[in-house]
Amino acid sequence: MRPVDLIRKKRDGGEHSAQEISSLIEAFTRGDVPDYQMSAWMMAVLLRGMTSAETAALTEAMMRSGSVMDLSELPGVKVDKHSTGGVGDKTSLILAPIVAAGGLIVPMISGRGLGHTGGTLDKLEAIQGFNVNLSLGDFLRALREIGCAMAGQTAELVPADKKMYALRDVTGTIESAPLICASIMSKKLAEGIDGLVLDVKTGSGAFMKRTEDAEHLAQMMVDTGRRMGKKMAALITDMDQPLGRAVGNSREVAECLEILGGARHPMSEDLRYLSLELSAWMFHLGGRVTSVDAGRALASEMVASGRALAKFREICRMQGAEDPLRWPVAKFTAPFPATSGGFIASIQCEQVGLASLVLGGGRNKQDDVIDHAVGLELHKKIGDAAQAGEPIATVHYNDPARLPEAMRMLGEAYCVGSQPPSGPRVIVKNII
Amino acid sequence: MRPVDLIRKKRDGGEHSAQEISSLIEAFTRGDVPDYQMSAWMMAVLLRGMTSAETAALTEAMMRSGSVMDLSELPGVKVDKHSTGGVGDKTSLILAPIVAAGGLIVPMISGRGLGHTGGTLDKLEAIQGFNVNLSLGDFLRALREIGCAMAGQTAELVPADKKMYALRDVTGTIESAPLICASIMSKKLAEGIDGLVLDVKTGSGAFMKRTEDAEHLAQMMVDTGRRMGKKMAALITDMDQPLGRAVGNSREVAECLEILGGARHPMSEDLRYLSLELSAWMFHLGGRVTSVDAGRALASEMVASGRALAKFREICRMQGAEDPLRWPVAKFTAPFPATSGGFIASIQCEQVGLASLVLGGGRNKQDDVIDHAVGLELHKKIGDAAQAGEPIATVHYNDPARLPEAMRMLGEAYCVGSQPPSGPRVIVKNII
Repeated sequence: MRPVDLIRKKRDGGEHSAQEISSLIEAFTRGDVPDYQMSAWMMAVLLRGMTSAETAALTEAMMRSGSVMDLSELPGVKVDKHSTGGVGDKTSLILAPIVAAGGLIVPMISGRGLGHTGGTLDKLEAIQGFNVNLSLGDFLRALREIGCAMAGQTAELVPADKKMYALRDVTGTIESAPLICASIMSKKLAEGIDGLVLDVKTGSGAFMKRTEDAEHLAQMMVDTGRRMGKKMAALITDMDQPLGRAVGNSREVAECLEILGGARHPMSEDLRYLSLELSAWMFHLGGRVTSVDAGRALASEMVASGRALAKFREICRMQGAEDPLRWPVAKFTAPFPATSGGFIASIQCEQVGLASLVLGGGRNKQDDVIDHAVGLELHKKIGDAAQAGEPIATVHYNDPARLPEAMRMLGEAYCVGSQPPSGPRVIVKNII
Repeated sequence: MRPVDLIRKKRDGGEHSAQEISSLIEAFTRGDVPDYQMSAWMMAVLLRGMTSAETAALTEAMMRSGSVMDLSELPGVKVDKHSTGGVGDKTSLILAPIVAAGGLIVPMISGRGLGHTGGTLDKLEAIQGFNVNLSLGDFLRALREIGCAMAGQTAELVPADKKMYALRDVTGTIESAPLICASIMSKKLAEGIDGLVLDVKTGSGAFMKRTEDAEHLAQMMVDTGRRMGKKMAALITDMDQPLGRAVGNSREVAECLEILGGARHPMSEDLRYLSLELSAWMFHLGGRVTSVDAGRALASEMVASGRALAKFREICRMQGAEDPLRWPVAKFTAPFPATSGGFIASIQCEQVGLASLVLGGGRNKQDDVIDHAVGLELHKKIGDAAQAGEPIATVHYNDPARLPEAMRMLGEAYCVGSQPPSGPRVIVKNII
């Protein structure tokens, strides 16, 4: 079938065979299908949808567009977690050492931040010397020796996704559940894992604003993974406010080390809870425990015993960072005060992420350079009481010229009401 | 608004402003909007549709992407006809001289054939010396001196359509009523005409197989033309079998000259009737007569008096052909016999067109060279009785190696039944 016939078939609501999808993706990856045909096809997919068989076929075709890691020689069960992203979402830095310390293998390939969302690679790079650009050999060696590696995607893994994502970004075809699902799952399955826990965000700072859309995407990803023989679980979790209290790379690393060290902070309880919960599910999927409850106990034990923090130090050393506590600190801080008294009614998550971005802590474009030192620390979250003039956040900054814009954005982000709202739930729903 | 925002708006079912559409079309024509964005937008238009205001805005933006002919200095009313195309559809060669002979100006810009359909320019080029590549100056001189010119589109007219059509052809975005409407109407309105009669085909050989789709497109084109101040009429006409009896350029010219000369042939009556009917509507729209009935009388008079044939000779001479009777003749003929006796129940029009194409009489690709001599003459049409072995068509061919494939296609095209079917109507419906 010619590409135009495949476009017409999808346009008219038809269902593709796995063969049709794989030939299209192969030809596009080779450069034999031009961008203008791929973008028309992806728009047809966005508006017509895909069956679960088609979505699985697309995921597999994208996965096979490059090399697929073969971890079968490595003894042990390999599990990973994927989050759809948000503001202050730093659970990877906590759960990877917990789960590796608990005896599973965590081959974690992560991304960078863009716009209001952060990325695990950027957070890791805030630690002096931390190298996320591992060769395949170094990646495998780290897995063999310490049970965990955290690195960026190499060019060999899923080249189809790289081309497709760049095209989707400029052709209005990002917001398609099957395309999102295939993009995420092809990359994760190319890691050669046995199980995957999904953290699908919903709320003001999430890609999926509505819980039902998040559930739909989560179910689709779970189905796709299971069709390909993987153990899968998904948690639908809240992103109506930043997770934890730190936004900005250095500050987020500090918050993670605090939790790995066993310290508690009321503004970080949601992050701690979710990190342990995701770890528990990873232990369960990986067959390390026979129930999620037992997984929770094991995760807590890894923190309480200090083994999780020790594992994080191992990861840092293996990837070139002598000391996880060496990160840059901003020159200045400024309080962001409440303009009126009352209760924090809502936090526009995206605005908080963008406030950090304008300080230099994020990226507008893919090649922007990040200032790891800058960011925010939240002192109040939804439901908390605040008096007029009381600081509800602290801004960490290097360039005073950027402060007013960040302050203005925080002003837009926080809404103070006279009544306490019903508190948000960290975990909205489990899809098992 | 950035192109990606326009794509997203249409994707989500929004309505574009005229300003949004014109900026998109202008930027695409300049090359500032890449093909992959335009194809995604056109797929969204195909699946989401357009309001009549959007369709009119698109038509106008495409029309203004190049030069628009200004015929206002030319005294007289300018009318044209557009057909959505079919097999054996040669009415232009008959009605243009009739209407010009009757006192209106016919500035006819036509296209070439592709696939199973023929094109007016190809038919005219079957006549030795006929030049369809007129400069704008020659085109205007012909209109001034003899009231008619028949030529191909110049690069200056509607460049946006040329780019868009090439892209639609390979991205599955041909079959969109608003895009078809804007493509046709932008070209016709760039001719600077006052009135336009549309011949919208329906049936097995037509682009719109279903009458309701043809009506929908016809109504859209009529509305668009009227919004732009033009006199408009549309006839929905039958393309369940070839029009007239000749398929193939030389043979079609011969059939037209026969009708212009006043001769009658039972297999050509549908063509004669439709050509006079379209002429009658053109006379009426152009204000030459006060009723369509009077238009019919005037058209018949132009044929009976010999003035239409004389006008056709004038057109030929003006465009370089000394004698309209000089066209190439094929070396061989072969009868195509009925395999069983009965009544012609149906004719797969596309197969007849493709049979002529495989003989060399049509184009698979835009730059194929046509053999004007080859083609078919039909001796039986729907409802006619045929005995087993009786010739139901004659094949005119130059290359004996191509004959078996053409015969096979004709075999697929004709279906003979035991009962006479209800005869097809030439004109299915008028939209006034």
